[in-house]
Amino acid sequence: METDSLYLRLAAHYRRAILGGVLAPGDRLPSVRSLMQSHHVSLSTAVQACRRLEEEGLVEARPRSGYFVLRPRRPVLAPVREPDVSRTPDPAQYVGIHDRVSAFIARCEAMGSGSNFAMAAPPAEFFPVEALKQAMMRALRRHPEMLCSRVPPQGHPALRSVLARRALEIGVQAHPDEVIVTHGCIEALNLALRAVARPGDTIAVESPTYFGLLQVLESLGMRALEVPTRPQHGMSVDALDLALQAYPDIRAVVTIPNHHNPLGCVMPDAEKARLVALCERRGVALIEDDTYGALGDAGPPPALKAWDTTGNVIYCASMHKTLAPGMRLGWMLGGRWSRRIEMLKFAQTRPNEPLAQAAVADYMGSKSYDRHLARLRVRVRNQREEMADAIARHFPEGTRLNAPSGGMLLWVELPAGTSGTGVFERALRDGVRVAPGAMFSNSDRYDHFLRVSCAEDYTAATARAVRLLADAVAAEVPRTARAAA
Amino acid sequence: METDSLYLRLAAHYRRAILGGVLAPGDRLPSVRSLMQSHHVSLSTAVQACRRLEEEGLVEARPRSGYFVLRPRRPVLAPVREPDVSRTPDPAQYVGIHDRVSAFIARCEAMGSGSNFAMAAPPAEFFPVEALKQAMMRALRRHPEMLCSRVPPQGHPALRSVLARRALEIGVQAHPDEVIVTHGCIEALNLALRAVARPGDTIAVESPTYFGLLQVLESLGMRALEVPTRPQHGMSVDALDLALQAYPDIRAVVTIPNHHNPLGCVMPDAEKARLVALCERRGVALIEDDTYGALGDAGPPPALKAWDTTGNVIYCASMHKTLAPGMRLGWMLGGRWSRRIEMLKFAQTRPNEPLAQAAVADYMGSKSYDRHLARLRVRVRNQREEMADAIARHFPEGTRLNAPSGGMLLWVELPAGTSGTGVFERALRDGVRVAPGAMFSNSDRYDHFLRVSCAEDYTAATARAVRLLADAVAAEVPRTARAAA
Ligand SMILES: Cc1ncc(COP(=O)(O)O)c(C=O)c1O
Ligand SMILES: Cc1ncc(COP(=O)(O)O)c(C=O)c1O
Repeated sequence: METDSLYLRLAAHYRRAILGGVLAPGDRLPSVRSLMQSHHVSLSTAVQACRRLEEEGLVEARPRSGYFVLRPRRPVLAPVREPDVSRTPDPAQYVGIHDRVSAFIARCEAMGSGSNFAMAAPPAEFFPVEALKQAMMRALRRHPEMLCSRVPPQGHPALRSVLARRALEIGVQAHPDEVIVTHGCIEALNLALRAVARPGDTIAVESPTYFGLLQVLESLGMRALEVPTRPQHGMSVDALDLALQAYPDIRAVVTIPNHHNPLGCVMPDAEKARLVALCERRGVALIEDDTYGALGDAGPPPALKAWDTTGNVIYCASMHKTLAPGMRLGWMLGGRWSRRIEMLKFAQTRPNEPLAQAAVADYMGSKSYDRHLARLRVRVRNQREEMADAIARHFPEGTRLNAPSGGMLLWVELPAGTSGTGVFERALRDGVRVAPGAMFSNSDRYDHFLRVSCAEDYTAATARAVRLLADAVAAEVPRTARAAA
Repeated sequence: METDSLYLRLAAHYRRAILGGVLAPGDRLPSVRSLMQSHHVSLSTAVQACRRLEEEGLVEARPRSGYFVLRPRRPVLAPVREPDVSRTPDPAQYVGIHDRVSAFIARCEAMGSGSNFAMAAPPAEFFPVEALKQAMMRALRRHPEMLCSRVPPQGHPALRSVLARRALEIGVQAHPDEVIVTHGCIEALNLALRAVARPGDTIAVESPTYFGLLQVLESLGMRALEVPTRPQHGMSVDALDLALQAYPDIRAVVTIPNHHNPLGCVMPDAEKARLVALCERRGVALIEDDTYGALGDAGPPPALKAWDTTGNVIYCASMHKTLAPGMRLGWMLGGRWSRRIEMLKFAQTRPNEPLAQAAVADYMGSKSYDRHLARLRVRVRNQREEMADAIARHFPEGTRLNAPSGGMLLWVELPAGTSGTGVFERALRDGVRVAPGAMFSNSDRYDHFLRVSCAEDYTAATARAVRLLADAVAAEVPRTARAAA
């Protein structure tokens, strides 16, 4: 018994070193002899520890040379469970979503440092800070009077042109004049919703969905109807069809078709086409939030807007995740509501200030932007895969996980009955921030979920934090579930 | 008869030169002899022309030296007529105000160049472009990562501190944490209204008032109740009291107490105190738009907020008129609705990007800002006075005008029955832009008014444009009024 726990502890010590990157793939594990000396253990304990690591697939024995660290094998977790798409959704309007969400956010903010798996945007060093700074300087030198002149109506022409040109990549034909530049995607969502619906109206959204959207709806006095959403395919078009029949007061559908927040999934093309056609047929506006599309591993998936032939789709996007969170830029195509959206934009914040737009147009119109995007995609993919591996390795049995093909979000289904909020609290005490499933719905349906974001470089500290998080999950798994496992 | 019109034409020629600034105060008029030679007129015609100018107070005869140009005497116009404050206002909700206003604006925009008496903000050269550029450069060099980092919650601390310190000048005690930085005063007004009222609610506003406010109300689905407003004292507190009794569904009062747009007037302190007390007593939120306060000739008049002891006043202001129209910055103090406003700001556009805030904090915290403001005030006052003189001199009899003590707006009451919109159309054809009274109310009550803005330097071109405008007015005065005059 004594020795048993001793070899396990020794194995755990080296496991940490391997997973934390202290020992890299190809490195030699200390020899059995030196393990005996360093750790004051018997020969059998040292050998048992090495064998254990070998069983775990972390090291391999090479004849006459000792144990060598392996490139970690990817353990595969079962995907997140499918929802029942035949149930008619119930319009839960949780009026306190803002308070709930901001309480979570405030507690994370308060922590200041430490690993942050709650934050869904990469840190500044992932972005072309220097190039953007230079672009800003150039714009300032060329047109300093922009700072003190009246803003031109409807956004900066150069930026509108660049965005219209970039939209071609996602299958969208838009004239620069149709592009409306906004203060982030969040303003675009506000304007879109205000253009097509009024307070008291019902809006169909995915379940789960981005908490910021739920806050917007709450702040506008609109009711969110959560439509069953398939964790690998996005909003169920069949379930939406049922909902539209059951609730004729639905004015709009808001969806995040590409690298969904929090699911990470991309809606398949065929479903996109069906969704666009359904909304058109039923006379319900379709609002598309394409915040993460550009972070697809293989480039941006097509927008819903690409299937829109009648102007029924309002396209909203952001420069937050791909370029410059600190510039608060977003943009939109208003479809048949363009004029009304321009009116609302003018009455809400006036056109955006031109300086930042000029600088971003300059950068986004250059080849550097493409190179930056390519690098960012690789980096984000690597981090996501490291994180998925670590979760698969360390989270308790019964954990489920999707494998998104882009973006930086992992949606983790915890063993039945495990409280994500409990995990959030525990992990916070250990200095690790994560987003509990409860943030992503007005209902309690996702309490046993976590959204784990991998926005930061995957370092030894990250590896340690994932293990702390895994421990927090393990501690929250209910006894009954543990017994069953 | 022949000679009569000849001396009049000669006098008019030199009148133009004097009013247009070609001949400045103190300059000598050409001698009678040289007038005879240059213009091929008789001695008597030359002398009659000089006497005429003397009668008009434009030149004085000095013994043995000739005629000298005088500093123009200010002809005094009767002030704009008082409204009937005892009538109960009728809640006219003109649902097309945005279309009406934007049609006017679009027609002005289309003109591009020429004198612009429709624009209520000075051109770029009135502002510290170079200093702001340098401040932006410094902020970029010091903290380029701001461009690409998540925005800190609730605005930049340095700017919030500077604004809280500056608020002391207008009698307001505010902690920096209370300051909410916004995208212009227009976003502040949106947030304030959304915080205290809902679509369908009635909001009391001045009559006339800033068309932008009417657009905001329309876009939010709120109903504007126009309260009689005294052209020299602002909203009638007595009339408001009547209105609050007659319409118990009034949720808020929005007022521009300092250098009102379009009236130019400042509400007297005693009225400010009464207004704050009345709203508090009746449980109606008081929203203060202090966009022009800082342009008072003698510095900013106190804010309504200075009398607020219970948090019932929401203060909204702008950096648009005093510093940097192109940066789209504004700010507000939310009083007892602070938390709700922060929530709405977060859900509407998120906190403002930090770079511009850092730069503006840098500049506004410096002595240069005070020097700039002092210069701007003098410049704006001079322009306003030149313009008031020119209107008094050239507009037809029956014109009325206030004499504001700050700001750049003149509210001109035309002779009875004269269509301001007709004047707008006529003047536009002559390349002169002006804001017709119809823009400032949901009713037709101000059709015989013009708002003449004097945001630009008063040059010979300005003088010419005023006279074209005066001609347009004269042409629109109805025959009946002309006959009566
Ligand atoms: C799906 C989604 N939409 C919108 C937003 C907000 O975008 P922005 O920061 O551009 O306002 C976010 C930010 O996290 C998001 O995840
Ligand atoms: C009285 C008044 N309030 C608000 C505004 C809008 O301010 P901002 O440009 O800061 O949004 C204006 C602009 O002309 C104004 O005159």
